[in-house]
Amino acid sequence: MASESVVRSDPSGRGSLRDRIVSTNMHILGISLAAVSLGMMGCALLEALTSRRDTAALVVSAVVVGSAGGALWYLTAPGTTRMRQVFATVAWTWILTTAAGALPFVLAGTFAVPGVGFVEQLVNSLFESASGFSASGSTVLSDFEAPGRGLMMYRQLTHWYGGMGVVVLAVAVLPFLGVGGLELITAELPGTSSDRLAPRVSETARRLWLVYIGFTACAAVAFYAADGFSSLYDAVAHAFTVAATGGFSVHADSIGHYDSVAVEAVAIVFMILGGTSFTLHWRAVTARTLPYHRNSEFRTYLTVLSAASAVIVLIVWLENGLALGSSIRAAVFTVVSLGTSTGLSNATGPGSPADYVAWAAGAQLILVGLMVVGGCAGSTSGGIKVMRMRVLGLTMLRSIRYTQTPRAVIPIRLGSETVREAVVARAAGFFLLHFLLVLGGLLAVTSLGGDLETSLGAVFSALGNMGPALGEAGPTSNYAVAFSQPARLVLALLMVIGRLEIFPILLTAAGLFTSSYHAATRQGRHWMRFATRRFQR
Amino acid sequence: MASESVVRSDPSGRGSLRDRIVSTNMHILGISLAAVSLGMMGCALLEALTSRRDTAALVVSAVVVGSAGGALWYLTAPGTTRMRQVFATVAWTWILTTAAGALPFVLAGTFAVPGVGFVEQLVNSLFESASGFSASGSTVLSDFEAPGRGLMMYRQLTHWYGGMGVVVLAVAVLPFLGVGGLELITAELPGTSSDRLAPRVSETARRLWLVYIGFTACAAVAFYAADGFSSLYDAVAHAFTVAATGGFSVHADSIGHYDSVAVEAVAIVFMILGGTSFTLHWRAVTARTLPYHRNSEFRTYLTVLSAASAVIVLIVWLENGLALGSSIRAAVFTVVSLGTSTGLSNATGPGSPADYVAWAAGAQLILVGLMVVGGCAGSTSGGIKVMRMRVLGLTMLRSIRYTQTPRAVIPIRLGSETVREAVVARAAGFFLLHFLLVLGGLLAVTSLGGDLETSLGAVFSALGNMGPALGEAGPTSNYAVAFSQPARLVLALLMVIGRLEIFPILLTAAGLFTSSYHAATRQGRHWMRFATRRFQR
Repeated sequence: MASESVVRSDPSGRGSLRDRIVSTNMHILGISLAAVSLGMMGCALLEALTSRRDTAALVVSAVVVGSAGGALWYLTAPGTTRMRQVFATVAWTWILTTAAGALPFVLAGTFAVPGVGFVEQLVNSLFESASGFSASGSTVLSDFEAPGRGLMMYRQLTHWYGGMGVVVLAVAVLPFLGVGGLELITAELPGTSSDRLAPRVSETARRLWLVYIGFTACAAVAFYAADGFSSLYDAVAHAFTVAATGGFSVHADSIGHYDSVAVEAVAIVFMILGGTSFTLHWRAVTARTLPYHRNSEFRTYLTVLSAASAVIVLIVWLENGLALGSSIRAAVFTVVSLGTSTGLSNATGPGSPADYVAWAAGAQLILVGLMVVGGCAGSTSGGIKVMRMRVLGLTMLRSIRYTQTPRAVIPIRLGSETVREAVVARAAGFFLLHFLLVLGGLLAVTSLGGDLETSLGAVFSALGNMGPALGEAGPTSNYAVAFSQPARLVLALLMVIGRLEIFPILLTAAGLFTSSYHAATRQGRHWMRFATRRFQR
Repeated sequence: MASESVVRSDPSGRGSLRDRIVSTNMHILGISLAAVSLGMMGCALLEALTSRRDTAALVVSAVVVGSAGGALWYLTAPGTTRMRQVFATVAWTWILTTAAGALPFVLAGTFAVPGVGFVEQLVNSLFESASGFSASGSTVLSDFEAPGRGLMMYRQLTHWYGGMGVVVLAVAVLPFLGVGGLELITAELPGTSSDRLAPRVSETARRLWLVYIGFTACAAVAFYAADGFSSLYDAVAHAFTVAATGGFSVHADSIGHYDSVAVEAVAIVFMILGGTSFTLHWRAVTARTLPYHRNSEFRTYLTVLSAASAVIVLIVWLENGLALGSSIRAAVFTVVSLGTSTGLSNATGPGSPADYVAWAAGAQLILVGLMVVGGCAGSTSGGIKVMRMRVLGLTMLRSIRYTQTPRAVIPIRLGSETVREAVVARAAGFFLLHFLLVLGGLLAVTSLGGDLETSLGAVFSALGNMGPALGEAGPTSNYAVAFSQPARLVLALLMVIGRLEIFPILLTAAGLFTSSYHAATRQGRHWMRFATRRFQR
C-alpha cells in the first residue's frame, strides 16, 4: 500500500498532529472502515432485538473493524491530493474495506454449510462482501433463513455503502481524472488542479449523500406502502438495494417472493431512478423544474429500456408461449433490473415466467447487451454507461462517414457540446479495455471449469456489477454451485474492477509491479523512522 | 443496382461505343463473370477428362455465366471512377458473382441429398459459393466423393478467385477509400483523387496477380513434392486454398487425410505466407533482399502465432493429456490455420488430437481470439488484421496514459510513422462495427435455432472468413447439420460482409434504403431511353 512518506512538522501548532503520518490512503481507509463499523454496530443492535443468532459476530466485527479504522483515522492525516495518488487511494480503500466487510460472514459462519471447508468459507465471505460493496448482487448464499435479521440487513447495507462510494466516485472524483463517463461532458470543468480537488470533492460528496439518503428513505416508504405496511425490515432492505442498484434481497426468491404487481412497480420506478445520474436528482431537488426530460442521456436511457422491453415482450410472448400479461410483467421487470445493473428478479421460482434463463436465446442476448451498457454516468449502476455508448456509437457512425469524405474533420457532439478528441479516444480505449477484460476473465473462468455460456454471462455480469447471469448462474441460482472457488475469486475481482471503472485497479496494479521494490524500501524506512520516534519519547 | 445513368456521346469516334451504357458497376461485373466462366470451362474440361459426372452442369454454367458476363462487358463501358461509387461496384460485383458462382452446384445437384428440398439445395449452393468466393471455407457438403473431380476443383477455384479479388481490393482499392487496414500506414498516399484511381488500380492489380499466380504455383509444386508426387490434382486444389487462405479441401478430413508431417509443414509455411501482405511478396520478388523481417506488422504477426502456439501446446498437453509430440503437431497447425483465417484442419477424424472442439475451453478461446485478429493487412486472410489490432492496442494504452496526464497530446506511432487521428478514429469505428455485427449476427443465428457456443464461434468464423467454428460446427463437422437454413444464409451474408471489410456492403445497403426510390426512377428512365434507341435503329 503506497502512502506519502512525509511526516508533517507541526504546521498548526497542535501537538497532536506532530506525529501523525501524512497519508491520504490510510486516512480515507480509516474513515471508510469507521463508517462500515458503525453500520455493523447498528446491525448488531437489530440482531440483538430480533433474531439474536449472529449478534456476537456483528459486535466483534464492529469492534475489530472500528478499532482498525479509528486507529488509522487518528494516526494519519490527509496530505495534498496529488492526481496520480487518487487512483491508488480509491483502489486500496475499496479492496481493504471489502476484505474487512467479509468479517461478519466469517465470524457468523454464514457459509459454514456441511462439506464446506474453512478456506471455501473465506472465499465465499469475500465473494459476498465484494458482491455487496460493488453493488453487484451475485450471491453464494444458499439458505436465506439461516442468518439472523441483523446479519441479513448488514448484507443489504454493504450495497448501500458501495452505492454511497460510487456516487461520490462517479460524480466527484473520477471525472477529474478523466474517467467515469461523466468526463465526456464535463471535460472542461474548472478546478482539476490538485489543490482544489479535495474541497470540491467534500462539498459535492456532502450534497450527493443528502440526495442518496433522501432517495433511500423515499424508496423505503414506497416499498413499505406497496407491501401493505407489513414489514418495515423488508422495505428498508430493498430500499438499500435499489438506491445502490445492487441486487441482494432478504428473500431467496428476491422480489418474486411478494408476487405483487405493486411491489414490482415500486421496484421498477426506483431502479430506473437509481440508474439515473445523481446530479440530475440533485438538480431536481434544488431547482423548481424537473431536469430529467431535458437530459439527452436520460432520454437515450429510457429509449433503450423501452425498446428492449418491447422486443423481449414480443419474443417471450411468441417464442416462449407465455400469456401476454405475464410476458409484459416478466420482461419489463427483467429489462429494467438488468438495464440498470440492479439484478433483482421477480421470478417466483425456477421455470417461472420471469426466470429468464429459460427464455429464447435472442431475448437473453439482448439482456447481455443491457448488462454491457448499464445505466447513466453518475449513477450507482455499472457497465459501460449510456453516455459512453453514445460517444462510441457516434464514433462508429463517423468512421462510416469518413469512408465517404476521408479528408473531412467531423467533430463528435453530445447535445450542444463538442466532445474533445482526447476524450473520444479515452472512451474508445475504455471500451477496448472492457473487451480485453471480458476476454481475460472468460479465459480464466472457463479454464477454472465453467462452461462457455455460464462463464460468458457471469463475466459480463461481474464487470457490469449486475448480479445474476446466464445458464447455471441465472436469477434463481447460486454462484457457489455454478463456479469453482478460484473462479468465484476471479469474478469477485472483476466486480471490483468494473465498479471502479477499470482504471484505478489497473493503474494501481501496474504501479505495484513497477515500483514495488522502490516503494517497499521507502515505506520500510519511513515506518522505521516513525516507530523509532514513538519509542524515543 | 445503382449505375451511372449517362450515355456517353461518342468521344473517340468509334461507332461501337456510341450506344454502350457507361456503367463501371456492370462493366466490372461483366469482367468478373467472364473470368469465372473461364474457370468453369476449365473445370468442365477436367471433369470431362476424369469423373464425367458433372460435365454438363459445368458446361451449361460456363455458357450461361459467360454469356451474361460477356454481354455486360460488351454492352457497357467503364465511366469515371468516382470514390463513392467504388463501394457499390465492389459490393454488387461480389454479391452477384457469388450468386452466379452457385450455378454449377445447383445444376449438378451437389446438395440433392434425399430429404433436402429444392429451396434448401439453393440455400446450400449459395452458402457454398459465398464461402468459396469469400475464401472462408465453411462447408455444407456432406459426401465429398459424390461430386466429380472437375466440380470439386471448381469449388477450390472459387477460393482462388476470391483471393485474387481480395488482394486487389485490400492493396489497391480499399486503402484509397480509407478502409482495409493498409490505410493505416498509407494514409498519406498520393493519387487518391478520383481520376487517378483507375490506372493505379490496374497497374497494382497486374503486379499483385503475377505474385499471386507465382505463389499458387510454388505452393502446388511444394504440395506435390511433399505428398510424394502422388496427385497433382490434390496439390493444385490445396494450393488454391492456401493462396486464398480459404479452407476448402477435396477431402472430407481436409489435410488430416494425408496424415503426413511433410504435407502439414508445407501447408503451415504457405498459410503463413498467404496471411502476409502481398506487397511484401512483391517487394521480395523485385528487391534483392527479403523485406519480411523489416516489416513490423509481419513481426507482430509471427509473434502472435508463436505465442498462441506455445500456450495452446501447453494447454493441450497438460489439460487434455495428449502426448507432447501430438500436442505440438495439432496445436501449431491449428493455430496457423486459424491465425491466418485459412481453416484447413489436420484432424484425422472426430476426437483425434487436432479436433480442437475437444480441447480445453481456454485453448478454444485463444482460437476465437485468433479468428478475430486474422492475418496481415494486404493479405488474403480475414479478420480485423494485425495492423489494426496494433493501432487499437496503442489506443488502449494511450487511454491509460491519458488518465495520468489528461492534457497531454499523445500521438500513435506505427514504426516511425505517426498515424493520423482520423485514421485512428476509423480503426476504432471499424472495431465497434465489427463488434456490432457480431452481436447482430449472434442475435440472428441464435434466434434461428443455434445454441450459444456454436453460434458464437460461427459468427466470429464467418466475419473473419475462417471456415470451421466451435461446438457443433468444428473442423470435422458440417454447417448443414449445425445450422438451420436461414441461419446458413445469415452466415453466408456475414462472410461477404467480412470479406469486403464491412464498409462496402454497409454503405451500399444504406444507399439502397435512402435512395432506392430516387435510383429506381432514374434507372428506369435510363433503361427506357436505351431500349427505345436500340429499337429505333
